[in-house]
Amino acid sequence: MATQSTAPLFPLGNYTFGVKDHMSEQDPSVAARLQRLAHEYEERGQRTTVEGVIVVHDHGHPHVLMLQIANTFFKLPGEALNPGEDEIQGLKVRLSQMLSPPGSNDHHEWEIGELIGVWWRPNFETFMYPYVPAHITHPKEQKKLFLVHMPERKVLAVPRNMKLLAVPLFELYDNAARYGQQLSALPHLLSRFNFIYQ
Amino acid sequence: MATQSTAPLFPLGNYTFGVKDHMSEQDPSVAARLQRLAHEYEERGQRTTVEGVIVVHDHGHPHVLMLQIANTFFKLPGEALNPGEDEIQGLKVRLSQMLSPPGSNDHHEWEIGELIGVWWRPNFETFMYPYVPAHITHPKEQKKLFLVHMPERKVLAVPRNMKLLAVPLFELYDNAARYGQQLSALPHLLSRFNFIYQ
Ligand SMILES: [Zn+2]
Ligand SMILES: [Zn+2]
Ligand SMILES: [Zn+2]
Ligand SMILES: [Zn+2]
Repeated sequence: MATQSTAPLFPLGNYTFGVKDHMSEQDPSVAARLQRLAHEYEERGQRTTVEGVIVVHDHGHPHVLMLQIANTFFKLPGEALNPGEDEIQGLKVRLSQMLSPPGSNDHHEWEIGELIGVWWRPNFETFMYPYVPAHITHPKEQKKLFLVHMPERKVLAVPRNMKLLAVPLFELYDNAARYGQQLSALPHLLSRFNFIYQ
Repeated sequence: MATQSTAPLFPLGNYTFGVKDHMSEQDPSVAARLQRLAHEYEERGQRTTVEGVIVVHDHGHPHVLMLQIANTFFKLPGEALNPGEDEIQGLKVRLSQMLSPPGSNDHHEWEIGELIGVWWRPNFETFMYPYVPAHITHPKEQKKLFLVHMPERKVLAVPRNMKLLAVPLFELYDNAARYGQQLSALPHLLSRFNFIYQ
């Protein structure tokens, strides 16, 4: 139980990044996103969102792959699940949709590893917390972050309207101003892993 | 691998807190502490420190037990290991020294659970990071945080010069100003656990 989790890290240069078709965001604005959440909550109850944390190494330091949309905000690959959808299987499908070459249908090849963190949205608002806040009995959304175990080499393709960036942990750490509370906490969530540089 | 870790939480009121003899800090000041680290590093190499994260519930919310020294700074129970000392066994002994009733010799009863986070000290300075900073090849200290699985009830005793506080996660979160980088990150490190309130 107290043994340290180990994960191999491969060099950023082992991965090939192509471009594929535009992938629309489901919501045109943050307000629209929260409104859809409220509407779906009425019909389906609490939303579960899954995101994948892909770590590679470059210059001898771990980097996390993240998407940048419209040159502004950053996000991890992943999305809200449909009601009843399996978390692991659902994340594999989202990773393929967002990052695999078009038509490759390779979702079975993604290997989802450890759950590294959970965020809770208590209200139909942007704030999320790494716990259920006191006196909240019905959180509106939970977001689960999983480490993705990458193969030694892989061809990826990124939607034309997004950029895929490899951001070093030292850039994320203590930098909520630029990356927000969730992404800037990734160095904490990854600290328990013994990364083996390949 | 992607299954969520579960841990039972018992009410704060299940634990009894007594008082025991004064327990001296090894170093009279931060400067003295760093000087001793530098001296020991020369002779023994990298220091490993182990700390225990004891979680209970109160008012329906997780609280972390921490020590307050001289009404100012907060710390988790634990200490630096001796060279070659086993991490888990060493943490059990430190928990007994700091928190068990005098003469109870109960260190085998402490159950050390998951490794939840690691901090690295790159230089003989106060700053620690949740990763090895770029271009640092010989960190001076690593600190490992372990979840402590508490029994349903336990009698604890706190050294006379310290206070034991149960601090709620919502008080720690995003509050490095009061608790420092390490303690304020505990909500992140604990978010992946499915705590079962008993
Ligand atoms: Zn470099
Ligand atoms: Zn399938
Ligand atoms: Zn209350
Ligand atoms: Zn023993």
